Amino acid sequence: MDYFIMVLIVLNVIAVMLETVDSVYASYASEFFWFEAISVLIFSVEYISRLWAATEHADYQHPVWGRLRYAISPYMVIDLLAIVPFFFGAILDLRFLRALRLLRFLRLFKLARYSDSITLFVQVLRLKREELVITSVVGALILLMSSSLMYFAERGAQPEEFSSIPASLWWGVITLTTVGYGDVTPVTMGGQALGAVIAVTGIGLFALPASILASGFIEAARGKIDRCPHCGEEILEEDLEHIIESD
Amino acid sequence: MDYFIMVLIVLNVIAVMLETVDSVYASYASEFFWFEAISVLIFSVEYISRLWAATEHADYQHPVWGRLRYAISPYMVIDLLAIVPFFFGAILDLRFLRALRLLRFLRLFKLARYSDSITLFVQVLRLKREELVITSVVGALILLMSSSLMYFAERGAQPEEFSSIPASLWWGVITLTTVGYGDVTPVTMGGQALGAVIAVTGIGLFALPASILASGFIEAARGKIDRCPHCGEEILEEDLEHIIESD
Amino acid sequence: MDYFIMVLIVLNVIAVMLETVDSVYASYASEFFWFEAISVLIFSVEYISRLWAATEHADYQHPVWGRLRYAISPYMVIDLLAIVPFFFGAILDLRFLRALRLLRFLRLFKLARYSDSITLFVQVLRLKREELVITSVVGALILLMSSSLMYFAERGAQPEEFSSIPASLWWGVITLTTVGYGDVTPVTMGGQALGAVIAVTGIGLFALPASILASGFIEAARGKIDRCPHCGEEILEEDLEHIIESD
Amino acid sequence: MDYFIMVLIVLNVIAVMLETVDSVYASYASEFFWFEAISVLIFSVEYISRLWAATEHADYQHPVWGRLRYAISPYMVIDLLAIVPFFFGAILDLRFLRALRLLRFLRLFKLARYSDSITLFVQVLRLKREELVITSVVGALILLMSSSLMYFAERGAQPEEFSSIPASLWWGVITLTTVGYGDVTPVTMGGQALGAVIAVTGIGLFALPASILASGFIEAARGKIDRCPHCGEEILEEDLEHIIESD
Repeated sequence: MDYFIMVLIVLNVIAVMLETVDSVYASYASEFFWFEAISVLIFSVEYISRLWAATEHADYQHPVWGRLRYAISPYMVIDLLAIVPFFFGAILDLRFLRALRLLRFLRLFKLARYSDSITLFVQVLRLKREELVITSVVGALILLMSSSLMYFAERGAQPEEFSSIPASLWWGVITLTTVGYGDVTPVTMGGQALGAVIAVTGIGLFALPASILASGFIEAARGKIDRCPHCGEEILEEDLEHIIESD
Repeated sequence: MDYFIMVLIVLNVIAVMLETVDSVYASYASEFFWFEAISVLIFSVEYISRLWAATEHADYQHPVWGRLRYAISPYMVIDLLAIVPFFFGAILDLRFLRALRLLRFLRLFKLARYSDSITLFVQVLRLKREELVITSVVGALILLMSSSLMYFAERGAQPEEFSSIPASLWWGVITLTTVGYGDVTPVTMGGQALGAVIAVTGIGLFALPASILASGFIEAARGKIDRCPHCGEEILEEDLEHIIESD
Repeated sequence: MDYFIMVLIVLNVIAVMLETVDSVYASYASEFFWFEAISVLIFSVEYISRLWAATEHADYQHPVWGRLRYAISPYMVIDLLAIVPFFFGAILDLRFLRALRLLRFLRLFKLARYSDSITLFVQVLRLKREELVITSVVGALILLMSSSLMYFAERGAQPEEFSSIPASLWWGVITLTTVGYGDVTPVTMGGQALGAVIAVTGIGLFALPASILASGFIEAARGKIDRCPHCGEEILEEDLEHIIESD
Repeated sequence: MDYFIMVLIVLNVIAVMLETVDSVYASYASEFFWFEAISVLIFSVEYISRLWAATEHADYQHPVWGRLRYAISPYMVIDLLAIVPFFFGAILDLRFLRALRLLRFLRLFKLARYSDSITLFVQVLRLKREELVITSVVGALILLMSSSLMYFAERGAQPEEFSSIPASLWWGVITLTTVGYGDVTPVTMGGQALGAVIAVTGIGLFALPASILASGFIEAARGKIDRCPHCGEEILEEDLEHIIESD
């Protein structure tokens, strides 16, 4: 059953994407509508039955308040938002609400429900919270400083591209992430010298949060399989505390 | 003998590449043909003798079924596919089957056979399977969300480049991998603001599978040389289990 | 109180950025001035009261020399530089000193004062100093070699872009950091072959300092939570030395 | 003395770079010549005295053969190559040998002599030799496969840019290293779909050698400071073997 819902979600995503291809939509407009209608029906039934069965959990026993509290849990809100746009679209003018249909992509987040390991991410974010905050602040400082300096260096030669510091931030982000589209680049000697210094020193620091996230993920994963070579017990942090106390 | 085959494979790859340079092919067409013919002959002899000797393995003792089962093992299929296109090319029109000759590059995979360490990759993929699946799904979600949002942000200003969500995926992939060709970039203020947010937050998450693969590779390599400082035994996961059981 | 100052700093940064947007500045010039005036007033009061209270620290007890020594500590100099430009700007011609206002961004560094964890960076830099120096030197060598070789390879075909080795450094930095704007690229066969070799071999080596910095950061962070599985003591480098001596 | 030589080397590098700036060279041609002449004189004296003193080493005691063997050690060859071009340049036409002056940059490698830690790199390369070879082969396979496939996908639409597989390798390298100049990009739908797949799957694998090198570097550095929490002995691999044997 869970697999069926997952496949249906993926098919829905593909359908939403193909709908935006004009030539495909022109040929299969009604098929798209019926596929979506049936999907929403199934999702609605699933949503309601899930809400109905909520009272079986110890946390949500009360027939009204329990279900209501369950309904405002994050995943249930996402599930609801994944269904609702269809009904609005059916009543009102579709073209006007077209952008709102994007919310249907939120259906994707339902995938998370079916995977136990998603909690690993939450763990990692909690484990590395402090470092992520600091490196993000440092990254933001580097971005602001770089973009401002480049604004003052290049505004004379390229008043269009570097019209203001907020506009210059576009250059900063695209450079510091090493995307480097090349639509906005320094052309003056001073600007290029500055850009070279920013690229060499800034990129490494800007990438720190990503490195930390990756390493935290790896550490957490390793935490699961590490075992003490003396007693064979899994070495997790809690276990370590336990060993200490039992000493 | 194995080294001779390896060198021959590398020379074949170089020959296939040089053949596509028109000026080189015009001058040395017959040399290319004879080199390929001789190579295929050697590869064929190697393939048949390998198949012949298969019955010496305990797994493939039966003279007919043993050899047949050996012939459908992955490496033998690659070896066959690396030889067959030549014979088809010799009988039918070469120009028509030109693209099929690309299969000859599969010969490269034969290199794997001559290296013991290739199994390390399989180990890493198995060790990190779970994390790779999750981060790949997350990466795919980020790609879909980014491309869809950018499609809605830029379709008005650039109906050519962002004609549909699938077309917009090209922008998404090239940005999230930080390749950044610059052939498709957001030009509106909203699109650039969105692109900046996607670049800053998305790239790190999109690179997670690569980080995990790299770290798994490193962990596995380290696993080979780690020794317990107490008994001097190599600490591999199996050994650890063994220690536990012998306790 | 600290949070109020932090929010005020962030608001100041946003104000300085928005001021550079001509259309916004035209509409709200006086608001910007008053916001800045009030901010500088608050920062000045904070600066003076901090200086006044300095004598309460054991290190800065002397009423004159203690305060003076405190005033020349790095953070206090940054704080002063973040305030002073306003008063100069108010007396002299603003347009002339416009670039100097950039110094106001130094206010951002005050954020560091409010975070204990900033010392982690200093630790990492000290821990990895040796490796960072070596890899930076190697990186600089690679950059110089690559740019010089590319200068000799491409100066004939593109005398504008590769006019000299210093000009060629722009290409080198943008390539080795993988930014790749595409404003300066090799066009000759030899230049492209050279560029391919540089890209494949150089980028990994050029990124070594960033890798080391990231790993040092991770090691230091891990250092905080590692515990000896035998005695439960936190394993920091100092602790390890302590264990050794107490043996 | 060593520091003086190092500073002189750096100044020489700067001089060679500035010489290529036409406007600077026009003004200071004679100063450049004299600076180079004096530098080469000092380097020559240093080279000869080093060669003279070689007999004091136990390895190079023989007055003739010892010195000769010392002269063909890698660093001494680099030192010689860093001096010789000047004398050739002085006798023959300078313009003709201009490119040869690039060899002067080899002087930079002399820097290595003055740093003890350079051996760390050699250690890392030895430690990770096996993994580096495998991942490099895999990387080369990915590059060849990607470029060949893209050649067949795009040669119809862009016969200029994708004229042959070797020409297509330029696209492959610039994409897989994530430089992404954008001078050669797929334009057909099939080419872009292929390029997207290559970018997503290939880049991570292509970056493996760099990751492994970085991690090996980190491991080796960590190896220096790790201590056994039980006996306080530094835990290096040799020490571990020693512990095992003394058991």
